[in-house]
Formats: sequence, structure tokens, C-alpha cells
Amino acid sequence: MTATAERHRVVIVGSGFGGLFAAKRLRRAAVDVTLIARTTHHLFQPLLYQVATGILSEGEIAPTTREILKRQRNARVLLGDVTEIDVAARTVASQAPTGTTLTPYDSLIVAAGSTQSYFGNDRFAEFAPGMKSIDDALELRGRIFDAFELAELASDPDEIDRWLTFVVVGAGATGVEMAGQISELARRTLPGDFRSIDPATARVVLLDAADAVLGNFGDKLSDKAFRQLRRIKVDVQLGATVVDLDATGIEVEDRDGTRRRIPSMCKIWAAGVAASPLGRQLAEQTGAATDRAGRVHVEPDCSLPGHPEVFVVGDMMAEQPGVAQVAIQAGRYAAGQIRRRTRGRAAGKPFAYYDKGSMATVSRFHAVASIKRLQFAGFIAWLMWLALHLFYIVGFKSRVTTLLHWSVSFVGRGRSERTTTQQQVYARRAIEQVGRT
Amino acid sequence: MTATAERHRVVIVGSGFGGLFAAKRLRRAAVDVTLIARTTHHLFQPLLYQVATGILSEGEIAPTTREILKRQRNARVLLGDVTEIDVAARTVASQAPTGTTLTPYDSLIVAAGSTQSYFGNDRFAEFAPGMKSIDDALELRGRIFDAFELAELASDPDEIDRWLTFVVVGAGATGVEMAGQISELARRTLPGDFRSIDPATARVVLLDAADAVLGNFGDKLSDKAFRQLRRIKVDVQLGATVVDLDATGIEVEDRDGTRRRIPSMCKIWAAGVAASPLGRQLAEQTGAATDRAGRVHVEPDCSLPGHPEVFVVGDMMAEQPGVAQVAIQAGRYAAGQIRRRTRGRAAGKPFAYYDKGSMATVSRFHAVASIKRLQFAGFIAWLMWLALHLFYIVGFKSRVTTLLHWSVSFVGRGRSERTTTQQQVYARRAIEQVGRT
Repeated sequence: MTATAERHRVVIVGSGFGGLFAAKRLRRAAVDVTLIARTTHHLFQPLLYQVATGILSEGEIAPTTREILKRQRNARVLLGDVTEIDVAARTVASQAPTGTTLTPYDSLIVAAGSTQSYFGNDRFAEFAPGMKSIDDALELRGRIFDAFELAELASDPDEIDRWLTFVVVGAGATGVEMAGQISELARRTLPGDFRSIDPATARVVLLDAADAVLGNFGDKLSDKAFRQLRRIKVDVQLGATVVDLDATGIEVEDRDGTRRRIPSMCKIWAAGVAASPLGRQLAEQTGAATDRAGRVHVEPDCSLPGHPEVFVVGDMMAEQPGVAQVAIQAGRYAAGQIRRRTRGRAAGKPFAYYDKGSMATVSRFHAVASIKRLQFAGFIAWLMWLALHLFYIVGFKSRVTTLLHWSVSFVGRGRSERTTTQQQVYARRAIEQVGRT
Repeated sequence: MTATAERHRVVIVGSGFGGLFAAKRLRRAAVDVTLIARTTHHLFQPLLYQVATGILSEGEIAPTTREILKRQRNARVLLGDVTEIDVAARTVASQAPTGTTLTPYDSLIVAAGSTQSYFGNDRFAEFAPGMKSIDDALELRGRIFDAFELAELASDPDEIDRWLTFVVVGAGATGVEMAGQISELARRTLPGDFRSIDPATARVVLLDAADAVLGNFGDKLSDKAFRQLRRIKVDVQLGATVVDLDATGIEVEDRDGTRRRIPSMCKIWAAGVAASPLGRQLAEQTGAATDRAGRVHVEPDCSLPGHPEVFVVGDMMAEQPGVAQVAIQAGRYAAGQIRRRTRGRAAGKPFAYYDKGSMATVSRFHAVASIKRLQFAGFIAWLMWLALHLFYIVGFKSRVTTLLHWSVSFVGRGRSERTTTQQQVYARRAIEQVGRT
């Protein structure tokens, strides 16, 4: 390592797509990179639903960030929950069990991502976990598999129905993939495992207040996805707004104003997202504007108004879709801008998101893909999804085990990662007790 | 399925080696088997240390019990924590979030295993988790990997030392394997990942009150294991009794009466075990004797004195070593006895444990194995360990991914399953706060 005293210090907040790709882009730059993140892993979020439904292990989609950056000698990784960014003092404060760490920066890339939003109803979280973290996925794995276990134990038909009704709120890519997988789990993997219940009778409800599933894929693909969901017995209910949610069910209001209750023990929230609170914190200090989801209106070069040394990228940026590609491209772009400056070059062109397209898997062998003006649905789109995801999964060994787990689940009917912990069983117990009072 | 009304009802408590192998042995018997267990998985406990140290995923060592018994049509699996066995009424009461289930039996096999014992100091559990469940292994995975993360953040040399000192209490097979793996993790996998600390300087202390490691393997193998542990830099301290334990360290008393403190944030308890409390409950009802660990003195046919229809097997049996083979053999034996009776045959010979031998892995490519009068140490013993464990792992797909993960870790230096959850980080945080007051 070269002397570091006078090198330009780049601090990156977050180990998601934005933060990780920014760090990698600085590999050959004459800067010192410090990446601070709340978790020790880089999460491949698009496959979280496969951890929740027992196909993949958490290690396969969440390799350790410091292992990925091991050979990048100008980068260091620190565990810490960033609680305060002081843009005047140019410091980042992060919390860990060892205390508070204050890290000074010359340039800063804030890529802290987003969390689930319950649109002001935070108490929903206990009854309907989101799909944003490994903790969420393992918690949901526990709830989904336990629901079948508990249905097997129950004797009251209404209770059995409640355990075997799964409600997914939000018909975007995450909701569609989750609903599709639960349905396939119930219909392909679990039959034969139980003696009292028939898992294939499980009902998977996919709710959205909007009129279409996968709205952003356009009418044609949205329609194809809708029909495929129906084919695999997902009960898609559109124009249905969630008005309340508790341990044993969910209240929805249809477009005509009727309110009804869907009894269900296992609810999954894949509806809204809110940017990391660091967005509002930065905005308050600089007068930058934020949107309703707390995302920051940045300058054309992704920097904070009045602070060219602070970049905000990924899910925290307003006016951009909250997808992995935006985070990757903006992270790389911000890193490129920093690199230009440290080399004394002029600023580059404004950031422009290059839309490589979107994909969502509806079921095994069936996906939809929208790439520029081309639209694919069915098996071809699924093969594209397979190739792309295998390509993006970090590391050879993960690719091999992942391919094997996919063969087991898609060609066969098995699921290798169904193990749940007692912690989750106990959580479930507490929730059920709430439902009983 | 045939009519079940008049079939002999066998209830099995526990999904460990004893319970699972008993259930399988009854595959062709004209009985109805109900297996009741607290977890939904069968745990391959001998490899728990590999989940804790990031080599294997939990799914690889804990397949779902009902999936294993899927094709055994006379068996059903129920999730439930057995709280009461009434030998007079011949019923088993189990708790689940759906309420209490009362299951009547004609024959009962109690194979509820053992839990960690802190010899009356239950408050140690918070600071030094045991090695008995998937929850334990994932909790320890979080603590072990976090310790390196937090050492990287710390600046005080004493604090760094505390984070980089790992103390394993108990030098039986589990303790030896755990200590060996942490040392290899620190010396083979992690170097290069950190910038401030050198993980290879981590100190792994293996403590035991006895005079030898792996005492039950005999002097020769014990000595070989001891030397191999020293070669991989494990600090073996024998004749050292734990007298106290808190968030930041452990107090030990040496044989000469000196008391000393080992500062350490990460402690692992692999010392004592206590039989499931169901053992004492059965003994109280029947006047059977129990030993100090709560294990039941059973009849020569593994039945409860005065209750030939109730069998107690595995870790809950007194006068037998607490190893997987005892549980497997006694579980099968009890099932065989039941099968004989239902066919009107005379009771078989008394149960006799056939000792197939013992094995423990000290480090990569180095194990010790004692098989009858033959003793092996080193690479040959390790190959035997490898073959045997691959053979015993349930299911083809697990074998393939496990072999791949082992290649990554033993031939290479990587570990694919290092992912920890926030739940664990928060647990750690709470513990550190205790240590700070």
C-alpha cells in the first residue's frame, strides 16, 4: 500500500448495488475508499424471494462485502449504522457495538437505499414483514413454512383456511415473484408432505390498489403475467386498497367502496418503499428538495445541490425508478466523477440512466422481459432471466450451488433450504397470541 | 392408506437421530406413527460447527423431517413442544401456536435428546451460547464473524485483543472441532479481508477442566489431537475450570488454585449436556431413577421400569455415551421391539450398543478416528471422516452442495456461508452494552 496521508478520501455509505459498484469503480483511482454499511454483506435483493421460499440459502445471495473487496487494496469496509452525516464538517458518524466512529471525507457517496414503507401504518410491519433484508427473508421463510405446519395441526376449518391463505400486498416484480413462488411451493413441492391438509388447496392472494400487475412493464406483458398468475392459481385482486391489517387477517377496500376482510395468518408486504432517512437529513442541511418517499432531488451529476462533493445514488434519488440498474449506474457514475476530479479533469456529462430493461419471473419457466422496444413472455424470457441472474451473482461457487439449487427446484420439485429457526417459531407464537385475544 | 382406526399407535417424541431412525424402522410395520418435534427439521448435529463457522448453510445439515418421511405413508409429523407425558392416561401433550394437542399412544418412544448444561449457572448462556441447535449455530456465526468486524473498528489494543480472543469451553469432539475451525477461519480464510487488524493474530483458547482433549479417544489419539491443535495455534489449556463468565471475559481456576481472567468477547460453551426435562418427568411418574444429567435408567430393552410400552432412547438414556450412534441404534431397537409385539412375537435380546467407533476433525485434512482396536490420526482419518459424513448426510442434493462447500473451504480458502442477520448484530449490541456498564 502507498502512503495514505494525502490521498483523497472517499466515503461510501451502503453496501448495496450503488455502494458496491461505486467502490469497485474506484479500484484504480488514487483515492482511499471507506465503505460503511449496516450489514456485513452485499445483498442481491432481486433473489430475496427465493430465500424466503426455501430455494436458496442466505449465503448464496448475500456474500460478505469485505470478501468481494478483499483484493481492492485502496478500499476498506467498516461495519456501522450511519446515523449522521455532517456536510459542513465533512464527517460521517456511524454506530457499532464498539461505539461511534467518525469518518472524515473529501468526497462522499450516499447509497443507503430504501426500507419498506407502510404508508404511515408502521404497526402493519409486525403482521406483514417486508422484503428488503436477509432478516425479512428468513422471517418470512419461517412464517410461510410454519403456516403449513400449523394448518396440519389445526382442526377448525376456518382456522385451517386462515393458515393456508397467503396474502401478498403489492403487484410489482417482488410481489408477483413472491406470490408465484408461494403458489408453486404449495402446488409442486409440498404435496405429499402432509397427512391432514392438502397444501395444493392453499390460496395465494396478490393484492394491488392499481389496475394491473407489473404496471411498469406495459399492457401486453402485464396482461401475460396476469394470465400466467391465474394459470398457477394465484388469486389476483386489483383495485383493492389495504385499509387495515392484524394478526389474523387483512381488510381491503375495493374500488366501489365495499370493505371486506380476508382471513390470513401469513401476510407479506411488497408494496411501498421509503428512502433511507439519511436523505431527509441531507436535505435539511442543504435545502435540497425531497419527494414523498424521502428521496432527494439531486443535481444532474447526482450531487447534492451546493455540495458537489456529496453524491446521492440509487433508491435515494428522486425521479428515477428504484431498481438495481439505476443504483449500479449512478454508483459507477458518481465514482467516475470523483475520479475525474482527482485527476484534474473537467466534469463529465450529466448522469443518464440507460434502461437495459426489466424482468420478472412469474413461475418456473415463465417470465416477462421488456428490453427496449422488445417484449418477451414465457420460456424464452425465463431463460434470459436465468442467464442474467447467474451472470450477476457474485462468485463462481455461488453460481454452482445456485444452479444446483435451481435444478432441484425448477426441474425437480424439491427445495433444499427450508430450515427455519426457533426464534421465528417463537415470533409466530407471539403473533398468534395477539390474534387470540 | 389403509383404515387406521384399530392400528397400533406409536408416538415418537423428537426428530433427532433417535426419533427419526425409530420412525424409519417402522416403515413396513402395521402401525400408525406420529412423530412430534419442536423443530420442523432433523438436525445433523455433528456438523453444526460448520454452520457456525460459515462453511455450510443451515439447510444442508437440517432437512425438513416431513420431507424425509414424505413417502412413509404410515408416518405423520407434528410440530409441537412436548410439555407433558401422562404414562397412566397414555397421552402426550404438545404445545404449538394453534394450542395444545393431546396425542394418545399405544407405544411411545421418547427421544427428546439433550440441551446444553451450564452446571447450574444458566446466566452463562447469554454470554456463551451452546452448540445444540440451528439457532445456536447461527447466533455463534453472528458472534464469531462480528468479532472480527468489531476488532477492525476498535482502536484500543486491549479492546482489539478482547474481540480477537475466542474461548471454547470443553475439549470433547464439539469443542475441538469448533476451536480448530475458528483457528482455520482466522488463519486461512480471513487474512486479506481486513485493513487494520491481522485476523491471523486471533487467539483461540480451548479450555477443559480435565487433563486431556478428546479424553474418550484414549491417550494416543488424545495426544495426537493435542499436538495438531497446537500446530494450528489453538491455545489448549487443560485442568482449567470455569468459575465465572460475563460479557467481556471468562474467569478460570487452574488446578493449583490460581484464578485468572481471560478477556474475550466471544465465548462458546461446548462443555456439559443435560437430558430433556421430560426424562425427570417420566421418572417422577414411574419411580425410575435418573442420573445427575437427568438421564433415565431404563430397562435392558430401553423401556421405562413398569412401562414396557414406553421407551426412552438416545441422549436421554443413562449409562450410554451421548453420541449419534447410541441414539440411532436405540431408536431402531425400540422400534424393532414394538414391531415384534404387534406381530405377537417374543421380546428380542436386550439392547446392546455396538460401538462403531468415534471420530473428530481437528483441522482441515486432519482427524482422529478410533474404530474398535484400530486408531487413525491425520489425513487417512480425515478421509474416513469425509466419506462417513457424506454418506450420512440425508439426500443427494445436500451431498453435492456440501461437497462443493467443502471443496471451497478445504481445498480453497473460502467460506460461502458467512451471512449473518441483524437480529444477531443487535443481540451482540445488547451484550456489549452490558459489558460497558
